[in-house]
Amino acid sequence: DVAKDVDESLIEKFMLEVDNIQIQENLRSLTKVPHMATTAGDEETVQIMLKRWQDPETGLDKAWREEYWVYLSFPDKNNPNTVTVVSPTDTVLHTIREKEKPYTPDQSDPEVVQPYAAYSPAGHVKGKLVYANQGKPSDYSELNKTVDLRGTIAITKYGGAGRSAKAINAAPYGVVGVLVYTDPLDMNDGLMSDANETYPHSWYMPPSGVERGSYNIDFGDLLTPHLAAKEETYRINATDITGIPPIPTQPIGFEDAYRLICELGGEPAPDAWQGGFNCTYNFGGPGFKPTSSFTNSDVKLDIYNYEEVKPSSNVMGFIRGSVEPDRYVIYGNHRDSWVHGAIDPSSGTSVMLEITRVLGKMVKQGTWRPRRSIIFGSWGAEEFGLIGSAEYTEQYFAALSERSVAYINVDIAVFANATLGASGMPSMQNVIFKAAKQVKAPGHEKSVYDNWLQYTNKTSPTHGLIPRMGYLTGAGSDYAPFSHYLGITSMDMSYTYDKTKTNARIYPAYHTAYDTFDYASKYIDPGFVGHQAVARTAGNVLIRLADSLILPLNCADYAESLEEYLSTALNLYEQKLKTMNISMEPLKHAVTSFRAAVSNLEKVIQSPDLANETPLKVRWINDQLMLLDRAFLDPLAFPDKYGFRHVIWASSSAGKQTFPGLADAYANAESSGQASDWDKVHYHLSVLSQAILGAASTLTDDMQTQT
Amino acid sequence: DVAKDVDESLIEKFMLEVDNIQIQENLRSLTKVPHMATTAGDEETVQIMLKRWQDPETGLDKAWREEYWVYLSFPDKNNPNTVTVVSPTDTVLHTIREKEKPYTPDQSDPEVVQPYAAYSPAGHVKGKLVYANQGKPSDYSELNKTVDLRGTIAITKYGGAGRSAKAINAAPYGVVGVLVYTDPLDMNDGLMSDANETYPHSWYMPPSGVERGSYNIDFGDLLTPHLAAKEETYRINATDITGIPPIPTQPIGFEDAYRLICELGGEPAPDAWQGGFNCTYNFGGPGFKPTSSFTNSDVKLDIYNYEEVKPSSNVMGFIRGSVEPDRYVIYGNHRDSWVHGAIDPSSGTSVMLEITRVLGKMVKQGTWRPRRSIIFGSWGAEEFGLIGSAEYTEQYFAALSERSVAYINVDIAVFANATLGASGMPSMQNVIFKAAKQVKAPGHEKSVYDNWLQYTNKTSPTHGLIPRMGYLTGAGSDYAPFSHYLGITSMDMSYTYDKTKTNARIYPAYHTAYDTFDYASKYIDPGFVGHQAVARTAGNVLIRLADSLILPLNCADYAESLEEYLSTALNLYEQKLKTMNISMEPLKHAVTSFRAAVSNLEKVIQSPDLANETPLKVRWINDQLMLLDRAFLDPLAFPDKYGFRHVIWASSSAGKQTFPGLADAYANAESSGQASDWDKVHYHLSVLSQAILGAASTLTDDMQTQT
Ligand SMILES: [Ca+2]
Ligand SMILES: [Ca+2]
Ligand SMILES: [Zn+2]
Ligand SMILES: [Zn+2]
Ligand SMILES: [Zn+2]
Ligand SMILES: [Zn+2]
Repeated sequence: DVAKDVDESLIEKFMLEVDNIQIQENLRSLTKVPHMATTAGDEETVQIMLKRWQDPETGLDKAWREEYWVYLSFPDKNNPNTVTVVSPTDTVLHTIREKEKPYTPDQSDPEVVQPYAAYSPAGHVKGKLVYANQGKPSDYSELNKTVDLRGTIAITKYGGAGRSAKAINAAPYGVVGVLVYTDPLDMNDGLMSDANETYPHSWYMPPSGVERGSYNIDFGDLLTPHLAAKEETYRINATDITGIPPIPTQPIGFEDAYRLICELGGEPAPDAWQGGFNCTYNFGGPGFKPTSSFTNSDVKLDIYNYEEVKPSSNVMGFIRGSVEPDRYVIYGNHRDSWVHGAIDPSSGTSVMLEITRVLGKMVKQGTWRPRRSIIFGSWGAEEFGLIGSAEYTEQYFAALSERSVAYINVDIAVFANATLGASGMPSMQNVIFKAAKQVKAPGHEKSVYDNWLQYTNKTSPTHGLIPRMGYLTGAGSDYAPFSHYLGITSMDMSYTYDKTKTNARIYPAYHTAYDTFDYASKYIDPGFVGHQAVARTAGNVLIRLADSLILPLNCADYAESLEEYLSTALNLYEQKLKTMNISMEPLKHAVTSFRAAVSNLEKVIQSPDLANETPLKVRWINDQLMLLDRAFLDPLAFPDKYGFRHVIWASSSAGKQTFPGLADAYANAESSGQASDWDKVHYHLSVLSQAILGAASTLTDDMQTQT
Repeated sequence: DVAKDVDESLIEKFMLEVDNIQIQENLRSLTKVPHMATTAGDEETVQIMLKRWQDPETGLDKAWREEYWVYLSFPDKNNPNTVTVVSPTDTVLHTIREKEKPYTPDQSDPEVVQPYAAYSPAGHVKGKLVYANQGKPSDYSELNKTVDLRGTIAITKYGGAGRSAKAINAAPYGVVGVLVYTDPLDMNDGLMSDANETYPHSWYMPPSGVERGSYNIDFGDLLTPHLAAKEETYRINATDITGIPPIPTQPIGFEDAYRLICELGGEPAPDAWQGGFNCTYNFGGPGFKPTSSFTNSDVKLDIYNYEEVKPSSNVMGFIRGSVEPDRYVIYGNHRDSWVHGAIDPSSGTSVMLEITRVLGKMVKQGTWRPRRSIIFGSWGAEEFGLIGSAEYTEQYFAALSERSVAYINVDIAVFANATLGASGMPSMQNVIFKAAKQVKAPGHEKSVYDNWLQYTNKTSPTHGLIPRMGYLTGAGSDYAPFSHYLGITSMDMSYTYDKTKTNARIYPAYHTAYDTFDYASKYIDPGFVGHQAVARTAGNVLIRLADSLILPLNCADYAESLEEYLSTALNLYEQKLKTMNISMEPLKHAVTSFRAAVSNLEKVIQSPDLANETPLKVRWINDQLMLLDRAFLDPLAFPDKYGFRHVIWASSSAGKQTFPGLADAYANAESSGQASDWDKVHYHLSVLSQAILGAASTLTDDMQTQT
């Protein structure tokens, strides 16, 4: 029936069926073995996904594998990376732990990969140790004031700068190697002892825990920018890759970092650089203090990482739409982990499998078929830089651009059990709220929405007090290729912390060997009720996007966000720009036109006539809603930011809650003072105004916007 | 009625109503005064268009003006450009005619702009004259073998190289100024005398005729790449413009060129360089021969061109679609001319006005309303580089990309009265043929199609002997922003020559002061029956695109063209590429997949069920057809070619009937032999294969292509 709207009773039925124990068992099976991208364990999870999605009773219409040949980086099993303290006579005084200390049998699986910095070059370097805080540009320039950094090894904390940035920022000063560790203050609320404080006694990171990670900036396969990495695809030279460490880099546990940092000589570092260790963090002489047994010693890195192009699989699942099969609602998460990945990403995959089980059963029983098609993606090699999802969007760029209604990402489904957290395009806010109101919050009688409202909220001019949803301005998970590269309306959702109870940057077992089923079921979500709430909420959103007659994408909320951004931009920049003869009027005009177009469209949508209109009218209104984010794309707007094309939500380093390209260009011009940099501000203002005005045009039938 | 198909009787009625005398009177009114872009005469034509399109009885639903502030170049009325021959003592021995000789009163209108090279810099240069054939790179390098070009003035013929290229190619050799003329052999079949041979006795160019033109390479406003040139839009510095002459350049008539060339000294130029004058074309000593009265004299250019940002108007007309108002069929032509522009562009505008009169009357009488919306565009400032249409596509990029079914361009409607000529995407071929079969050829009993078939044809594997349609690989008129920048399925149509009867490069009054109503009605299309045939054919195509239930875009013909291109590419490149370890298999696979997707889609379209399907199914099939060309866009495929994004139809300098980027990359690699250039061939092969495979995916509901 072409005029059928979403069936509320079906949504209730769906939510009732979503079962916490099923999710728990999904997680158990997904986390049996480590499943780093392209390993045998990864292939086991491919088989699990295919089996489940091809199940004759609870599977999807079809499921298949898509393979890409992608550039990965691994430590050498036969030559583990080592970090040592060596005396002037080359005696090894101390060796950094090679692998994390196991507390359960699975943690001692030989397939647990040694902690390493993916894409760090191999190499053998030694030098005096210095402490460089978070490895930000400002950290090195501060340190460089008193210490000659040439030939040194820098030890840095996670946080503040991207992983690879810590090495990229260091190299120009002559630093020859970088160590990275997690400071207990940033992750463990200061706790350090595994005798009674950390895992296995709590969720905190044990002293030997090491956060692995991909040390790169750009997302997608690094050898095939803009091209899907098929076997015969052209590949750039590995030497032309940018955004990866130019010098050997290795992450280590805080028990080893403690030994190194507390022995450092030199001046005491500034207060802001101090951390959780019970010693003063010094800059380093460079090197250790005279009273240390390490005095005059070097720190030596022997890194044996190697790169390899290997086949990585996405597993795709498809439910064909009954009325509009050529409209896609996409739901995805990565499948690969660093080790067992119980939380990251298997919590999300367990949720996805439960959603597909319930929906698949209805499809197989013939009791339901969505109006629009649903695509499920189990992405490969996300941990190395969103590779599977990025290659997918490159391969199917045209069809996905034309047909995708929205992308839902649930990676880490549960960080903690306090409240829902969600980010997305503003047009998604309404449908997320609607779903969250219909789900009971775990451990409460109230709804997920009411619980969320209590934890984090804001006042909207239109809606009053509402939960505060974030924007997808980064590239932290697989939503990025969809939102930034394709301009598809996207959201990311999870259960998360009570920020008043912990300062942890993220859940402490993140990317360590401790992110196991045991950890997840004991410390993150006992009973899997948080998982259940996320599955219900995300599934509810998914069904609404797939089944609603008029797409539940609210462009008035988009207008509100643009108005907020505009108002911030005017406050921050208008006065100064006037003096530079750069007018912000076109931007104001664009936002006003956008609001006017939205108001007209809203009238059409809310008119009682619409239900009686032809199905084509519904489709054309939906096309306007579906394609709205596409109108904000400009492939040339951010030449220095690979994959970022969305002029409203691109990443920004200026740290302002406003249009990212404008904020960055302004900050840059203000700091350099050069006329050519003010020109770039003017240029970006034109890019931005044109995009917003162009988006306004797409909300009208005849492209005419009047204000 | 959502299921109504095109009404054949309405098309017949339309064609009957199209009247040659109306077209003639349109032309008379449009050509009363010179109407160069942004002049008072241009504004008069704006008013004509608005009046006609807003006419209560024969107008459109609405019509309005869209203004852009664009960068133009003009000669100085108070300081005309001069070209003189000056003796060593600075005596002026000869002065090139300032304006063309008038033969009718309108040709002596003071608003007839002096012949000039738009975007040539102002400047005062003199030097010894040399003859550089067509000003191609090979011409200058040949000439440079025997003549020291430093400080010389080069005289060149139109043809062989783009207008500005003649100066761009010259400057590196130290040439300080460039003259350009039309050789009688290239345009006049050798005829030179206005006593009895040329206009006003025939269509040939009189001796003082000069082809004006825009001397630039990139299309669109030169100061606002990618941005619509609104008043406040960011503009690059004029000094950063590329693709315009770096040295003063001026076009002159062949009577003056004759004086100059036949007096040149030096060696005789090669046979291929000789032209229509009754003398030997010498290289130049440099300078004139010793026996000449000009011996030892310089040629001096005093160029006073100035640039100005001025408001230029597009006039837009709109008929709202009854069933799918958000689908646009666009029909356009430029309005501005160099002088009176009777043929270029007013023949096309006269045709457009007749089409809108007939359609407008039906709309106003309530007897017809198209299924889809129709947008008419009367573009401004095309002669300066497709500016009005390019700015329009920049401003409405998103909405036009999402909604445009096709673009029809009729600029010069009638070059000559022999046969129809048409170019376009292969998917347009079928609907053009269909229309051409229904129109009687002027001066014949047979159809336009049958007449065309006789003049120029080819054998298609599918259709047998058919007229040969061209591809839109250049940027010769306003189709370029639509086809190349937006990837909208486009076509360009005109009545044209019998190539066996003339070698004229184009109709001889092109861009001269002789392109007047008198010329058009006497020598190009007496009785305006050619215009009428074009109006009927183009209008027929327009109605079919607007009214057909299933869009008359044939993707099987697209597959055939890709197969032809592939077969040529394999013949030309495969063997050599194998030796370079570059496989063409992915390209073969892509074309095969494209054909397979097309075959499946054709089955659906031809199935008798389709008519009984939901209107949504018809719409989704149409979306696949409409968006097919969009799938071939890659904004990064041609970084050196502004505005070219369509990987199949981009311009190419290699001169091969195959994929343009591949052909150019191959030619470049073959000539340089460098490994990095062979890499670029491999890279482009990947870009191309991915685009074709991506396009194949858009022809399926679920993006899965199998072969
Ligand atoms: Ca890639
Ligand atoms: Ca522009
Ligand atoms: Zn993850
Ligand atoms: Zn991760
Ligand atoms: Zn023209
Ligand atoms: Zn022209």
